[in-house]
Amino acid sequence: MDYKEMAVELHRKLKGKIEVVSRVKVDSQQALSTAYTPGVAEPCLRIAAEPESIYDFTRKGNLVAVVTDGSAVLGLGNIGGAAGMPVMEGKAVLFKEFGDVDAFPICLATQDTEEIIRTVKAIAPTFGGINLEDISAPRCFEIEKRLIDELDIPVFHDDQHGTAIVVLAALKNALKVVGKDIGSVNAVILGPGAAGTAIANLLMTAGLKNLRICDRKGLLCEGREGMTEHKTELARKTNPEKLCGCLADVMKGADVFIGVSGPDTVTEDMIASMNEGAIVFAMSNPNPEIAPDAAARAGAAVIGTGRSDYPNQINNVLVFPGIFKGALSVRARKITVEMKLAAADAIASLISDEERSAQYIIPKPFDPRVSAAVAEAVRNAATK
Amino acid sequence: MDYKEMAVELHRKLKGKIEVVSRVKVDSQQALSTAYTPGVAEPCLRIAAEPESIYDFTRKGNLVAVVTDGSAVLGLGNIGGAAGMPVMEGKAVLFKEFGDVDAFPICLATQDTEEIIRTVKAIAPTFGGINLEDISAPRCFEIEKRLIDELDIPVFHDDQHGTAIVVLAALKNALKVVGKDIGSVNAVILGPGAAGTAIANLLMTAGLKNLRICDRKGLLCEGREGMTEHKTELARKTNPEKLCGCLADVMKGADVFIGVSGPDTVTEDMIASMNEGAIVFAMSNPNPEIAPDAAARAGAAVIGTGRSDYPNQINNVLVFPGIFKGALSVRARKITVEMKLAAADAIASLISDEERSAQYIIPKPFDPRVSAAVAEAVRNAATK
Repeated sequence: MDYKEMAVELHRKLKGKIEVVSRVKVDSQQALSTAYTPGVAEPCLRIAAEPESIYDFTRKGNLVAVVTDGSAVLGLGNIGGAAGMPVMEGKAVLFKEFGDVDAFPICLATQDTEEIIRTVKAIAPTFGGINLEDISAPRCFEIEKRLIDELDIPVFHDDQHGTAIVVLAALKNALKVVGKDIGSVNAVILGPGAAGTAIANLLMTAGLKNLRICDRKGLLCEGREGMTEHKTELARKTNPEKLCGCLADVMKGADVFIGVSGPDTVTEDMIASMNEGAIVFAMSNPNPEIAPDAAARAGAAVIGTGRSDYPNQINNVLVFPGIFKGALSVRARKITVEMKLAAADAIASLISDEERSAQYIIPKPFDPRVSAAVAEAVRNAATK
Repeated sequence: MDYKEMAVELHRKLKGKIEVVSRVKVDSQQALSTAYTPGVAEPCLRIAAEPESIYDFTRKGNLVAVVTDGSAVLGLGNIGGAAGMPVMEGKAVLFKEFGDVDAFPICLATQDTEEIIRTVKAIAPTFGGINLEDISAPRCFEIEKRLIDELDIPVFHDDQHGTAIVVLAALKNALKVVGKDIGSVNAVILGPGAAGTAIANLLMTAGLKNLRICDRKGLLCEGREGMTEHKTELARKTNPEKLCGCLADVMKGADVFIGVSGPDTVTEDMIASMNEGAIVFAMSNPNPEIAPDAAARAGAAVIGTGRSDYPNQINNVLVFPGIFKGALSVRARKITVEMKLAAADAIASLISDEERSAQYIIPKPFDPRVSAAVAEAVRNAATK
């Protein structure tokens, strides 16, 4: 049986990978009178009098909504909110299993930007945080920005920032392996979507100076054919000289390649044209931009993918449980860039100088230290 | 320590009476690949191809949203959605403990009718049913009606119909105790809000012919001072002769009094003026319209309240877990009036002829037979 059939079987058997359970046994009149009426009126009145006490009396402080409109689910594209439910339940499972954070799927019946914003704001009182998931670019940028501005709980689009943080963590260790410095390397990102954009922004914040961003037509360049407003903005930041070129041109002499695009978009020749000590993160899932063996043959020094069957799986399950665990524990209102940088540092630092190698630049998804380390780093960054 | 302090203590200790847990252990790469990527893509694609299969692959089929805008929480009035959270969590606890139905609180940041409708429709794909809770009249009528019309999952305003069903169940047995027939008794409802309106409608459907409805100003009567559109509609149904009178007038010669109003609104004299074999349901909570001992002194034959410290607690916890359990199990699109009547019958029938007495007309909240009996009745009514 292959993993597809196994997944169908598992889902059919479970009928739901999550469950809402009671934390209180209601087996006596007294239990009913304290967990429910009439006793429950008292915590209600206290929250009405002092809104912040909702964190003392309810689940809000450990509860995250995993919100999707189903417009960009995995590599499946726009399958709609309902069809995205198994992924959102899966995400909730990972929140709980890896971070002991309660998460609940909210699969939307709308894909309208304003309607999504309005809906999330309307249901926000229940939750301590909002994890946006699998919402397509460029709508995801507007939705996230508006919700961050208009809500008083952390809002985090995991496809963007979870990916950016784990890439930065992996890159830090990869650069140590090849003995290069983030301030002086040439990097190329293929795929200017949600993940690519957030990676670009975070790496630049972390000190990356030379970055080119490509789509399938080549280097993003203001005025080029096929440039959306979003791509133009990225081009202005990373290509002020308005250079033109195809991906093969841009890869020549690059030190770092980061693919968040689609399968088989990079050739061995392109990898071979990179600088010595090339770092290649081919993260398209399940089929990477270039197969790891091919990249190795072409001379890549450090290779990472999104896959579990190769070394260096760059997976944002290393990030989101700890990010929310940390932010919730200090009731942070926002996930700041300082928290993101601290999270990347914390993940990278779990690998000691002795352990670090081309085959081991990032902890495994099941490394039990990760979510606590990320939470601690986020907490410290928040209280600074 | 009184129950208020105990409730505060319990809520502070638990920090949430519900918890979202994982039904799958993610402790191996294979578990991750079937519960999450890449395997999870397959159930997503199946749902995209065949929307109904979401019930096979996700929690939707056993999952109810408990939605409130906090405009009429218990007897506390308009305290807002956030402050209503302890009640909604409590409701979720009762759903799970009594019916093994997963329920999740959605506490809204809005009290605008259209915005509530829009929000519930937007989040509906996650849920198998919607339990509206503690939304004030008359907005609750419009919100429920519109959602029933516009959604393909059951929508049920428990304050209305849960209460109506349990009152009908209690009334059936009370009438047997006093040897009267629903078709020939005179009944009075005090409190024309959400509960009173639904009770009126359901009792009339069940055969009640002579019904008067009062508010604190007296008998509802078209043209009377203080009549809203909603009250006028009720008056047209129950008082076509446009009689006038205060509550004391209306109570004279009544067989049944049902109070869903406020504390201490009924006097011993009023009870004494009722017919022999008077049935008095004084359900205002926590303080009834008249204390049960006072009602007994004044000659009431059967007395019920909402309280647990007197016989005959008329509590809708007997209803909603089984209603949704039954409706979800057959994927009913609506909660029909037939289901409501069947549920009332099922509850009443749990008390045998031998057991039935003035002190025992309705099962106790902890009677383990109730939710299964209600679910079975709803299922049968649905499949008829």
